[in-house]
Formats: sequence, C-alpha cells, structure tokens
Amino acid sequence: MTQTDPGALLAAMRAKAPLVQCITNFVAMNIAANVLLAAGASPAMVHAAEESGAFARLADALTVNPGTPDPAWIEGMAVAAQAAVAAGRPWVLDPVAVGATAFRREACTRLLALKPALVRGNASEIRVLAGLAAAGRGADTGDSVASAEAAARALAARAGCIVAVTGPEDFVTDGERALRLHGGHALMPRVTALGCALTALCGAFLAVGDDPLAATAGALATFKAAGALAGAQATGPGSFVPAFLDALHALEPEAVSATAPVVSA
Amino acid sequence: MTQTDPGALLAAMRAKAPLVQCITNFVAMNIAANVLLAAGASPAMVHAAEESGAFARLADALTVNPGTPDPAWIEGMAVAAQAAVAAGRPWVLDPVAVGATAFRREACTRLLALKPALVRGNASEIRVLAGLAAAGRGADTGDSVASAEAAARALAARAGCIVAVTGPEDFVTDGERALRLHGGHALMPRVTALGCALTALCGAFLAVGDDPLAATAGALATFKAAGALAGAQATGPGSFVPAFLDALHALEPEAVSATAPVVSA
Amino acid sequence: MTQTDPGALLAAMRAKAPLVQCITNFVAMNIAANVLLAAGASPAMVHAAEESGAFARLADALTVNPGTPDPAWIEGMAVAAQAAVAAGRPWVLDPVAVGATAFRREACTRLLALKPALVRGNASEIRVLAGLAAAGRGADTGDSVASAEAAARALAARAGCIVAVTGPEDFVTDGERALRLHGGHALMPRVTALGCALTALCGAFLAVGDDPLAATAGALATFKAAGALAGAQATGPGSFVPAFLDALHALEPEAVSATAPVVSA
Repeated sequence: MTQTDPGALLAAMRAKAPLVQCITNFVAMNIAANVLLAAGASPAMVHAAEESGAFARLADALTVNPGTPDPAWIEGMAVAAQAAVAAGRPWVLDPVAVGATAFRREACTRLLALKPALVRGNASEIRVLAGLAAAGRGADTGDSVASAEAAARALAARAGCIVAVTGPEDFVTDGERALRLHGGHALMPRVTALGCALTALCGAFLAVGDDPLAATAGALATFKAAGALAGAQATGPGSFVPAFLDALHALEPEAVSATAPVVSA
Repeated sequence: MTQTDPGALLAAMRAKAPLVQCITNFVAMNIAANVLLAAGASPAMVHAAEESGAFARLADALTVNPGTPDPAWIEGMAVAAQAAVAAGRPWVLDPVAVGATAFRREACTRLLALKPALVRGNASEIRVLAGLAAAGRGADTGDSVASAEAAARALAARAGCIVAVTGPEDFVTDGERALRLHGGHALMPRVTALGCALTALCGAFLAVGDDPLAATAGALATFKAAGALAGAQATGPGSFVPAFLDALHALEPEAVSATAPVVSA
Repeated sequence: MTQTDPGALLAAMRAKAPLVQCITNFVAMNIAANVLLAAGASPAMVHAAEESGAFARLADALTVNPGTPDPAWIEGMAVAAQAAVAAGRPWVLDPVAVGATAFRREACTRLLALKPALVRGNASEIRVLAGLAAAGRGADTGDSVASAEAAARALAARAGCIVAVTGPEDFVTDGERALRLHGGHALMPRVTALGCALTALCGAFLAVGDDPLAATAGALATFKAAGALAGAQATGPGSFVPAFLDALHALEPEAVSATAPVVSA
C-alpha cells in the first residue's frame, strides 16, 4: 500500500485526526461535523471574520461552502482562505448552486481567486464555475458527470487546483491526470447536505499525504464505500443517515478500494 | 381521482418535483430539507436579501419561517415574499411563536401584509395572529385546535389566504370552506421542527394544482399519513425521525387518504 | 427521595416542563432542541438582541453557547443573560473552544462577568477559563477531567457559580462541595454537539429545585444514564443519536442513579 491507495489514506487520516475548520451552510453544519467525527477527523465550525483567520492558522485544513451565504459570511470565508494559504494549509471550495444568482457567482469568483487546493461540486456547479454554462437553479444537479469532464479539466488548469465532480460517478482531475470512481448508493441524493459533508471530508484527507489528487480520490472513495454499505442496510433516506455514519465509523481501510474502486480516466 | 384528492396531489407533486425556496430557522434547516427531498421535492435554503428575491423568481414556491429571526433575516424574507408575489409564485408564512415578543409580532405583521397564499401555525400562533389572543411563550402550543377555528376563519377572510391550524388534528380554511384532518402520531410534538418542515412541504404542494385549499390539505394529509406509519415503527422520538423520512419516501399515494382522511368541516 | 436525588430531579423537571431559552451554535441547534423535548422540557431558540432579553424574562432558564460566535450573537447572549439575572432566572455558560482565539476568550470573559449560575465545559475549556491554561484548538478536549478539578474549584469560587467539567467522567463543584459521576458511553465524543445539548439540559434542571449543584448533577446523571442505555443499542455514532433520544424519552427516574451514580468527590 502506498499513500495513493484510498484505504491507506483513510488509515493515515485517522492516525492524524486532522482538525478541519468548516465554514459551511446552515443545512450542513451538523451532518458535516458528524461525518468528520465518524470518519476519524476533528471538526470545528468557525466562520466569523473576527476569528476565522486566526483559527485557519491552527487548523490542518479549511473547507468553505457558501450554500447559505450572506456578505458577512463570505467575508469570513475570504479571511480564512487567505490565512490558510499564508499558513500553507490546504482549503476546499464547494460552489453550491453557483449558477443560481449573481450574488453567488460573484462570491464564488472572489473565493476561487484565493487559491483553493480543491474545488468540489456537482456537474452543473463545475460547468458554471468553468464558464461553460450560464445558469442553474438549486443545489441539485441537472447535468451528468460526464458532461462536466471537459469543464473540470479546464477549470483545474486555469485555477491551478484539483477539481472534483461528484454524483452517481465521480471524476477528479488536476488538469492533466484524472481519476474516476464508481460506487455509492441511489439514496444519497435524497439526503440533504451529503455533498457538503463530502467537501468537509475532502479537507480531512487533504491534510494528509502530499498528493492532493490522490487525497481527494481517497475521500471520495471512502464516502462512496460507506454509502454503498449504508445503502445495503437502509430502508429509505431517513434510515440511510445513521447507517452511513455507522458505516463510516466502522469502515475497514481494506474495504474502501474493494467497494469503491478508483481507476484512471 | 381529481386534483383535490390528497394522494393524487402527492403524485402530481412528485411528478413536478418543485423547487421550494425555504427561509427557515436554524433548528429546522436540515429536517425541512430532508422532508422535502424524501417527499419528492427539491429544497433550496436561500435567505440573504442580496439574493433571496432573485431566487424567489426561479423557485416554484417560497416558504418563510421566522423561528430564529433577526432584522437581516426578516428583510431577506420580505424581499423574497415580494418577489414571489410579483412572479406569481405562492408563498407560505409560518408565524413561529408570534406571541412571544414584540419583535416577532412586528415581523409577522409586516410579512402577513405581503400576501402569503397560506399561513400555517399551531392554535396559539393563529389565535395571536388573528388578534384573538395577546400572549404566548414558546413554539409549543397551549391551545387546542378547536379553540382556533374561528380565529383561522377570520384571519383567512381578512388576509385573503388559506389558514391552516395544525396539531393533533388539523383545520384548514379559506375563510368560507373548511377541511379537517385526523391522523399523525403522539410522538410528533416530541420532535423539534416538524411543524416547520410541514410548512416547507406545504410550499411544495402549493406549487402544484390550482386549488390552494386542496393543495394545503394534501400536504397535511401526506404529513399525517407518514407520521402514523412512522409512529407504528418508532420506539421513541429519536427513532421516529428516520422512520418518518423513510415513510414519506415510500408513501403510496393511495395510502394517504386511507391513513389520514380529509373531511369537510 | 429528596430533591438532591438525580432521578427525583428528572421527575420534577418533567412535571414542570420548563421553557428553556437556548442561544446555541448552528451545529447544536437541532440536537439540543430534540434533547430537551425528549427529556420532557420545552426548548426555544431565541438569539437576536432585539428580542433575546424579552424572551429571557418569559423563560424558566437560559443557556448560552458561543460555539459559532459573531459579534451580533454575543450581543444577543449578553442581553439575554442580563435579563435572566434581573428576572431571577438561572443561566448557563458553555465556553466552547474558549482557548482557540482571542475573539472567543474576550467573548467568554464578557459573558462570565454576567453571573451565570453554571459554567459547563470540557477539561480544556475549564482550564482556559480558569486561567490555568493558555491555549486550545477545537471543541474536542485534550485534557483529562482530573486535570481540571483544581481549575473548576478555583473558577467556581472566583465566579460564584457552579462549574461542571464533563467527559468520560464528570466533576461538578460549587467551589467547596464537589460531586463526581461515572457512566455514559465511548461513542458520545464521536457525535457532534452532545456537550452543547447537555448544556441545554442543565438549563432545564436548573429551573427546578433550589440546589443548583444537585440540579446540575441531576442533568449530568440523566445524560450519562441515557448514554449508557443508548450505547448498548447502537452500532456506531449514527445509530447512537436516535437511540439516545429514545432512551432519554423512556428513561425511568429510578434508573438514573443506578445507571450513572453520583458520588461525593
């Protein structure tokens, strides 16, 4: 096993138990923190500009999700992102429903300029952020992952970061290399804020190892593996949530690659 | 089946999968989104005045719940409500604990003037909003639904909207016609924010069909039916929540009227 | 049984069903409200300075948790705390991650001066607040409860309040008398915001009885007893949450002392 194996990265993440600062939306706050705790990381939700930069210097990684934005929260996100970059910490941008309003497009454009290590979104969000699509409605995606691969490569090259497009299958690229993941479960889009929680988990993995493409794939594979295991237990989207957290907590590193294989794209 | 049958309305709502903008309180954010997803709608929590109006023009319905209000959120709610009305979209007002403070009374009075299609509250809240009661404490109700029927009729006639009083039984009226629903489960008031989530579901149903009284009754019947089914599975208020979401997701349209009959009042 | 028996205090709390105003963080909002409802109290999340003082005069107790603070929220907390003290109502301070940033230290110092009846925190937080430790990172504790006992006694004496240090074991003191509790379950620190929810439950118990040291111990014992019962049912941190709420709801007063004994320290 090397540090590009998703299971080995999960084990390394648990050994480090990274402190992950999350500035996320009100819907995702609780489930994102519980996903990090179940997986073995340590969450901290710290958003206000009065302290978000100071905290970013303490944390091992930062994740930023303007899903319920207002100007003060965007300011706290920008302050934290700048501090994370200055301190050499990775940070993740989740451009929730970026196409829905001018306010979101401006906020995400401002944040994207602050050098995230990773942008994670659904196909619609990545297409909008890459400039290949003009519109969108909610956080649900109407586009297939395949339709966003070219946008993801272009965005990664232009922004100098990893880009992950997640959905029924995942695609992750640094602009040149690319990986593809299968797995997960059909109930996942019927549970709110799981994508936001995945963004938080990506932060935990980026705090470990020196290959951010592999680290991102490790987080995505861990999430899909736990999702597949939970889906086999759940009787609907309600029972999926506790089953998913239990599965994340109990997940054997060796089971990750077997359940959610990562292949070169 | 016609579009006044609750089960037919549930099927129509799922077929449309309406985008419902929710400006709700911090307690309800997650469960309201999960209720909408489980039932088959698409939630979007978009609150800031900088974008709430723009989003209201995209959404199929808007729901407004000032349960954890502050001046900026009330402004975002007012902007969204005005945009929804201008765009011909229905919006729902949930006057949480309106009697508790002067700040809430003023906020709800301001919002009520912005022409909601529906006001949904518990008996105490509807009595206060109708001016028949002066005081209240928390969001829990101390009054019976029956005690608020006259207030509901008066409020509906005065405000030109549907008024729904929910509790162990539900009463819904447009000021002239009125419907009554039975069902649900005794654990429901022991779970926080279920009433707020019901408000969100009412928005989804109002986006479908052309009879807002029947649409509201469809949402209430769907909620009560899922509650009764979940209550039969749950061993307490904790296990009720996943069981309720599973039941909403699996609910057969034909089972709604059988489990939670709607009768003329 | 007297009013110092934890089970008797639980029964008394349920009989009163106190209205507990919680100004808590975004992660804890939902679980804190559900813990209060499951235990038999009535929660109300009311934070804005425009109404937090007015509401504090209606409520039976107030709990303040600056876990996701910003200046406006701290102001709402201070307004509510002052109103609670003026009205003779107990209030609880939960100094979340107080050591992490200067902003948090200043906020907690300001709030501590407003005369809480109880300060509840983990060992690291109590050590920082007592001035015996200078630093901290997240809300997770790195210190043992035993390491914070002297700090707790000193803080209680200096601030004139009860201080509770919670963790794998709990220690509670008024500066002279002290109690110790065992029980709970190892999954509890793997679920986010349970400590914040415990703070809310302490408020409910402080609204009952005339011995705040015993009331605090009653809340802690109730929480640990429900945790032990839930842990015996759960298969991970996800299934722990519904099991915990079910256990709180079903908890027999007689089982509290048997499951989570309180002893003099």
